[in-house]
Amino acid sequence: VAARLTDAERDAALRGVPDWTLAGEGRSITRSFEFGNFNEAFGWMTRVALLAERMNHHPDWKNSYRTVEVTLTIHDAGGLTERYFRLAAAIDRISP
Amino acid sequence: VAARLTDAERDAALRGVPDWTLAGEGRSITRSFEFGNFNEAFGWMTRVALLAERMNHHPDWKNSYRTVEVTLTIHDAGGLTERYFRLAAAIDRISP
Repeated sequence: VAARLTDAERDAALRGVPDWTLAGEGRSITRSFEFGNFNEAFGWMTRVALLAERMNHHPDWKNSYRTVEVTLTIHDAGGLTERYFRLAAAIDRISP
Repeated sequence: VAARLTDAERDAALRGVPDWTLAGEGRSITRSFEFGNFNEAFGWMTRVALLAERMNHHPDWKNSYRTVEVTLTIHDAGGLTERYFRLAAAIDRISP
């Protein structure tokens, strides 16, 4: 089990993915993405899905035509761990 | 432009897709789907995406691990038309 980040560690990690916002009372991070159309949006989602599957860490997300809102949420009792930020950074690397 | 359904026509169409629920003050229909895991959920979403692209009518949807919630919403000033129910029925045909 990964160690829960302290607030200071979390804030430092968040500075590494500045396009993401802390949400859900510090229990999730979120970012919105916009694409040219549905084809581009869903194509990108497919890339993220493969990434998530490989990292065994899955986003909560919603898609409406060319927008995608991604939330990385804690589903257990713990707090944000380093892997949330690793997934966020990996998503950023394949994002427009 | 497709004709807006009357309330009676809409109710008749809804009986054709009984797993869908009217929502958003009659401006959308919604259905939740559950799968065995993320792989199955996203695989299914990919099939629906291809269907939506072909029908040029795209769902609003959200996915959290093995669940997908699909909403077919009116994005213009009109009401539900027949194509919403056509897409719902097409989604049902490839659903578990």
